[in-house]
Amino acid sequence: MIDYQHLFDFVRRVFIAMGCPESDAELAANVLVSADLRGIDSHGVARLSGYVRLMDHGRLNPRPDIRVVHETPSTAVIDGDAGLGLVVAPKAMQVAIEKAEKAGTGWVAVRNSNHFGIAGYHASLALPHDMVGWAMTHAGPLVTPTFSKERLLGTNPICVVMPADQEPPFVLDMATTTAAYGKLEILQRKNLDTPTGWVQDAEGKPSTDANAVRKGGALLPLGGDRAHGSHKGYGLGAMVDLFCGVLSGANYGPWVPPFATAGFMSAEEGVGKGTGHFLGAMRVDAFRPASEFKQNMDTWIRRFRSAEGIDGQSVLIPGDPEREMEQIRKQEGIPLLGPVENDLRQLGDRFGVPFPEEN
Amino acid sequence: MIDYQHLFDFVRRVFIAMGCPESDAELAANVLVSADLRGIDSHGVARLSGYVRLMDHGRLNPRPDIRVVHETPSTAVIDGDAGLGLVVAPKAMQVAIEKAEKAGTGWVAVRNSNHFGIAGYHASLALPHDMVGWAMTHAGPLVTPTFSKERLLGTNPICVVMPADQEPPFVLDMATTTAAYGKLEILQRKNLDTPTGWVQDAEGKPSTDANAVRKGGALLPLGGDRAHGSHKGYGLGAMVDLFCGVLSGANYGPWVPPFATAGFMSAEEGVGKGTGHFLGAMRVDAFRPASEFKQNMDTWIRRFRSAEGIDGQSVLIPGDPEREMEQIRKQEGIPLLGPVENDLRQLGDRFGVPFPEEN
Repeated sequence: MIDYQHLFDFVRRVFIAMGCPESDAELAANVLVSADLRGIDSHGVARLSGYVRLMDHGRLNPRPDIRVVHETPSTAVIDGDAGLGLVVAPKAMQVAIEKAEKAGTGWVAVRNSNHFGIAGYHASLALPHDMVGWAMTHAGPLVTPTFSKERLLGTNPICVVMPADQEPPFVLDMATTTAAYGKLEILQRKNLDTPTGWVQDAEGKPSTDANAVRKGGALLPLGGDRAHGSHKGYGLGAMVDLFCGVLSGANYGPWVPPFATAGFMSAEEGVGKGTGHFLGAMRVDAFRPASEFKQNMDTWIRRFRSAEGIDGQSVLIPGDPEREMEQIRKQEGIPLLGPVENDLRQLGDRFGVPFPEEN
Repeated sequence: MIDYQHLFDFVRRVFIAMGCPESDAELAANVLVSADLRGIDSHGVARLSGYVRLMDHGRLNPRPDIRVVHETPSTAVIDGDAGLGLVVAPKAMQVAIEKAEKAGTGWVAVRNSNHFGIAGYHASLALPHDMVGWAMTHAGPLVTPTFSKERLLGTNPICVVMPADQEPPFVLDMATTTAAYGKLEILQRKNLDTPTGWVQDAEGKPSTDANAVRKGGALLPLGGDRAHGSHKGYGLGAMVDLFCGVLSGANYGPWVPPFATAGFMSAEEGVGKGTGHFLGAMRVDAFRPASEFKQNMDTWIRRFRSAEGIDGQSVLIPGDPEREMEQIRKQEGIPLLGPVENDLRQLGDRFGVPFPEEN
């Protein structure tokens, strides 16, 4: 277990050593470690070496000039100048919040960015302002549309957050696939099969092989197959791609650059600029007095929590599992898998940043 | 088969006989028959007698004073004055479009409305303006959250539409359940079981009984169960409820009034005003020149259509099945089930409107 503040400081110093300005390094480290705190290990410090590889391959600009290139009272388009998505996205969200202060809502499409970590971090920036927050991003293609053998979409998450009063906020942060890739990795390590509806093989046949994606298969859209509604998961993933890619002027569909795997695409091969995101902020009091809204949110949350459960289970509110994990890990520290820790130690050696001691 | 224009005229005249102004009756008839044309029979003229029952029970105001009760440059809240959702929603969408003309985007939360027909009709009003359209509505509780025995959500659809250039638009219009209730009714008539993951029984156990909902069971959120991602379908359905109910000041969760079944709730029993909707319009050129956007949409659509399919199948673009059905039914007429036709004939008798002849 590593203390999260020590881990944060390590990551921050690596980003500085990569050439990021100090404030950007702090922001990026905060976004990454927040994923580990919430238990979304696949999007946390395990990705740090990926960002370094992006830089090594000339796809990441550590000192980007992040600019608004087009705007209206409630919208903006931001060019991320190939910066860290971890930095571009919160800055774009800030623009959305400023737009919402004046126009009621603010919507920012981002192009020429990179992987932005967890959507929930960015959307949640709206909460202290009594705003509803939105964050979406697309990603390199690992997912097949319904009836397709070809991988044309990423896991393309949707995040929507809403503030409550005494209750914690509603935080929906979901990939539009049945399961996130990180869950396959857990099964791979345990040598277990997946449930049905998570993956298909390279021929498009249903599979329960946790390694199917590595073997040319694909993750499946939420629903799994047509009879179980995969056309809806595909439609949602497509919608995210269209907002993040087509509306922003980034790449889209199969042209979205992969995060940090071998065989990087160069910009010339794409149909737009880099990776895209889509962020939104909506002032609650652009609709109703915030106090009334938040009290109704409490009523909603309490009614759902108190629903009669199946076999003694409780109904969860979106965001509950991550909040619970964050409490635990702030106390107990963050567990790192051996390969992740080795990776981080190598980065530490390369950049002259000592890796923190175990708790 | 009934010619769709004859059916439209019949419905229009029934709405007039119910006391609706002529222009409202025309609009409402257009929304209803558009569902039949697109093959969404459960939301078309089969519902007409339901609207009449709403009126008979004093829940529907045929001459509503539809008012904007709060607004900012990019938002509005509309009180539907217990009018037909079929009329309130397109008028609210018009407000969203006007907001978007000036502010870039427009977002309208509606309360004190009723069932609005198909979401795709309302969202698609944005398309001729080169805007992205959004429409969501909640509905009476038929759906259990993950781990719950209690029905707390409706089938709560999400619709997002985007214009293309030479290609038809992207029209995602989906219930947030694995299957819509209309699909259960088809299986009931054929005496067939459902696939897994569509319904559970009154005890919360997985079921394949197409009559499970009638027996106290429930429709399941998209995903079916936790292992297959039902927490995501539940989260999406919850999000729709929060936008349509809590942000608008309508009822929410289990308090959303049922469409037109026995045991109507009176307003006093609720936690807000009537049923709610949420509509949005986003000017494409608030982000990018519309011509560039629409050409990229064409590229996206063609790339997905040309993907290598499984077993000779083709990848569909959201909206394709409904477009195809509309072409057929405009030519061949609209098939009505016996009970639906009987229902309509009775309405015709009551209101003195002759039912159209078969083709």
